[in-house]
Amino acid sequence: MKNGNGIDLNAGMACPIPISDYKKVLLAHGGGGRLSQRLINEMFVTQFRNEHLDTLHDGAILSVNNARLAFSTDSFVISPLFFPGGDIGTLAVNGTVNDLAMCGATPLYLSAAFIIEEGFSMDDLWKIVLSMKEAAGRAGVQLVTGDTKVVDKGKGDKIFINTSGIGSIPDGIDINPKNARAGDKIILSGTIADHGMAIMSVRENLEFETELKSDCAPLNTLVLAMFAAGKRIHVLRDPTRGGVAGALNEIAGSAHVGIMLDEAKIPVSEAVQSACEILGFDPLYVANEGKLLAIVGKDESERILSAMQAHPLGKNAVVIGEVTMEDSGTVLMKSRIGGTRVVDMLSGEQLPRIC
Amino acid sequence: MKNGNGIDLNAGMACPIPISDYKKVLLAHGGGGRLSQRLINEMFVTQFRNEHLDTLHDGAILSVNNARLAFSTDSFVISPLFFPGGDIGTLAVNGTVNDLAMCGATPLYLSAAFIIEEGFSMDDLWKIVLSMKEAAGRAGVQLVTGDTKVVDKGKGDKIFINTSGIGSIPDGIDINPKNARAGDKIILSGTIADHGMAIMSVRENLEFETELKSDCAPLNTLVLAMFAAGKRIHVLRDPTRGGVAGALNEIAGSAHVGIMLDEAKIPVSEAVQSACEILGFDPLYVANEGKLLAIVGKDESERILSAMQAHPLGKNAVVIGEVTMEDSGTVLMKSRIGGTRVVDMLSGEQLPRIC
Repeated sequence: MKNGNGIDLNAGMACPIPISDYKKVLLAHGGGGRLSQRLINEMFVTQFRNEHLDTLHDGAILSVNNARLAFSTDSFVISPLFFPGGDIGTLAVNGTVNDLAMCGATPLYLSAAFIIEEGFSMDDLWKIVLSMKEAAGRAGVQLVTGDTKVVDKGKGDKIFINTSGIGSIPDGIDINPKNARAGDKIILSGTIADHGMAIMSVRENLEFETELKSDCAPLNTLVLAMFAAGKRIHVLRDPTRGGVAGALNEIAGSAHVGIMLDEAKIPVSEAVQSACEILGFDPLYVANEGKLLAIVGKDESERILSAMQAHPLGKNAVVIGEVTMEDSGTVLMKSRIGGTRVVDMLSGEQLPRIC
Repeated sequence: MKNGNGIDLNAGMACPIPISDYKKVLLAHGGGGRLSQRLINEMFVTQFRNEHLDTLHDGAILSVNNARLAFSTDSFVISPLFFPGGDIGTLAVNGTVNDLAMCGATPLYLSAAFIIEEGFSMDDLWKIVLSMKEAAGRAGVQLVTGDTKVVDKGKGDKIFINTSGIGSIPDGIDINPKNARAGDKIILSGTIADHGMAIMSVRENLEFETELKSDCAPLNTLVLAMFAAGKRIHVLRDPTRGGVAGALNEIAGSAHVGIMLDEAKIPVSEAVQSACEILGFDPLYVANEGKLLAIVGKDESERILSAMQAHPLGKNAVVIGEVTMEDSGTVLMKSRIGGTRVVDMLSGEQLPRIC
C-alpha cells in the first residue's frame, strides 16, 4: 500500500491497530466522546507529535518573535444552519473566540473559510455573513483572511465554515488542563445543555412551553473579569461536544486527579430538563456554546465566582464540585438522592453535527 | 427576512444586488475567476472590511505584541484525493505554506481541521495523515492544533481539509500586489499547468506518453533564496486556482498597472501542452501548486533569477514579461506569431475542485 507520494505504508507505518478495528470512519469519531479521543490520539497525535501539540487543550500555545500566542481551529458543520439563538455564522465566530479564551488568550484575529454546496441560497449566505460580522463585533475580533470553495451539488451539505484564530496571551497566565490540583474548586458559568437541546428541538420539530434557545455567546470578556478577580485560574474549558461530562473526564485524565461533582448544584433550565427527558438525553453530555468550566484555587474561588456572577454571561455561575486526590482520572457525582455514581465519557455518538 | 439572531435584514442590509443576480451559489463562485472575485468583494469584503483584510493577498499581515505575522487559511476539497505527485494531505500542507511564503513570511505553525464523510476509509485517512506529516517535515512547519468533524454519509465527499497557518515576517520585507511598478520584471519559477492537468488526467482517465504529475511543493525555501539575492521583490504570488492569467489580472487590477507577457517565454511541458490541446484547456488558466510569480525591481531581476535557477524548485525560472505604465489593469500577451492579445480573467468555472 502506497500513499500519493509513493511512501510504502507497510514499512513500519501501518494504520494503528486500535483505530483500524474500525475500517471506516463512524459518526461517533466526530462526536467528542471516547471514539473521537482515540481517533485523535492514535492517528493524529502519534504522527504530528511536537512540543506545541496538546490535544487536551482548546488551542496551541506558541511563541513567535517573543510574542506569546494562542492558535486554534474549528470547522462548523451544524445542521440546521439557523436555530433559536444563532446560526452557523454566530457559532463559527464564537466557537473560535471561546477556544482562544479558554487558553487564557485575548482573541484578536479570525480567518473564515467556506465550503459551499453548489446551489446554496445566496440569501442564506448573506444572512450568515451578517451574523458573522455581528458576532465578530460583539467579541471584538477582526476577520482578516478567508477562503471560499464550492463543491458540486450532493457532495456537501449547504455550507461548512472553518474559523481559525489568533489570540495574545498576557504575561503570567498559564491555563492548562494538566494544572488541576486536589482541593481546587470547579465553577460552572451557568445552565447546561441549552445549545444541544435547542438544536434537537428544531430537528425533532418539538414545541415546548418555553422556547429552547442556544446559549451561543463569546466568553472572552467573562474570562477577563475572572482574571481581574483572581490569578489562580488553573483550567478553563468550554464544554461543547461531549458536554460537561466529556470536558471533565478529559481534564481528570490529563491532570491525573479525581473530580467529585454535586448533582444538585448543576443548573439545568426547566425547559431543557423537560426536553432531555422526552428525548432521552442526559444534560451532562449535551453541548454548550456559551458556558465555561473553571478550575480554580480554593482560596480565590469565592472572589472569582462573585466576579462571574456580576457578568451577564456568568450570572448563574455556581461551584459544582471539586478536584480530589482519590480516584485519579475519574469523574464521580453525588446524586440528589445521596448515592455516588461514575460519570463516564460517552463511548458513542450522542448528537451528530451539533456544531 | 431575519437572520438567526433576529436581525431584520431588510433594514438597509439586503443582499448586495450584483451577487444576488445569482440566486444560488454556482461552482464558478469557487473557481478563482471573475465570479469568485465578485462573491468575495461584494459579499465578504463589504461586511468584514478592516485594515488587515486584503483579499488580493494570499494572507493577512498582522502585528501581535510587536511581532509581525502572516496568517492564512485554505480549505482543500480536491477530487480525486490521491493523484500523481501528491494527495489532499500534501496539498493541504503545501498550500498554506505557500500562501504564507507569498506574504514574505517564514511559515512556522499550521492547524489542520478535517471534515470527514461517515464511512470514509480509515486506511485512506491514515495515508493522508502520513502525507501531511511528510509534507510538514519537508516544509519545516509544525502541525500544532486541529479539529475533526464527521458528517453523515452523502453530506460530504470523503474528506475535506482546512489548514490555517502562521508565519513570521522578517523586518524590512513588504510584499504586496499593490507594490508592482512600471518597469518591474515578471519572473515565473517554472513550467505551468502541471497540477491542474495531472488532476484532469486522472479524472478523465487519460494516458499520455509522459505521465502528468502535480508540481505540488513547498516554496518557502525558494523564497528565502530569492530574498538572499535581492531585496526589491515587490510581489509574490502562487498561481493556483485561476492560473497565471488569474493571478496576474488580480495584480494588474490592484496595482493599477499594465502587464505585458511574452508567450514564447512561458514554459509548458510537452505532456501538459498535449493534454491541454486534447481537453481544450488554455494552460494560462490552469492551476499550479508548486510555482510562483515574482514581480521584482528591474535592476535586481538577473540576480534573483539566477538564485531561483540554482534552487531545485526554480531551475526552469524565466522572465516572462514586465509591468507597464500603459493599459492599467490589463494583462496583454505578445503571441508567438507576433500579435498582441488581452489575457482576461476567466468568467466561469474551468476546473472545479482542483485544490
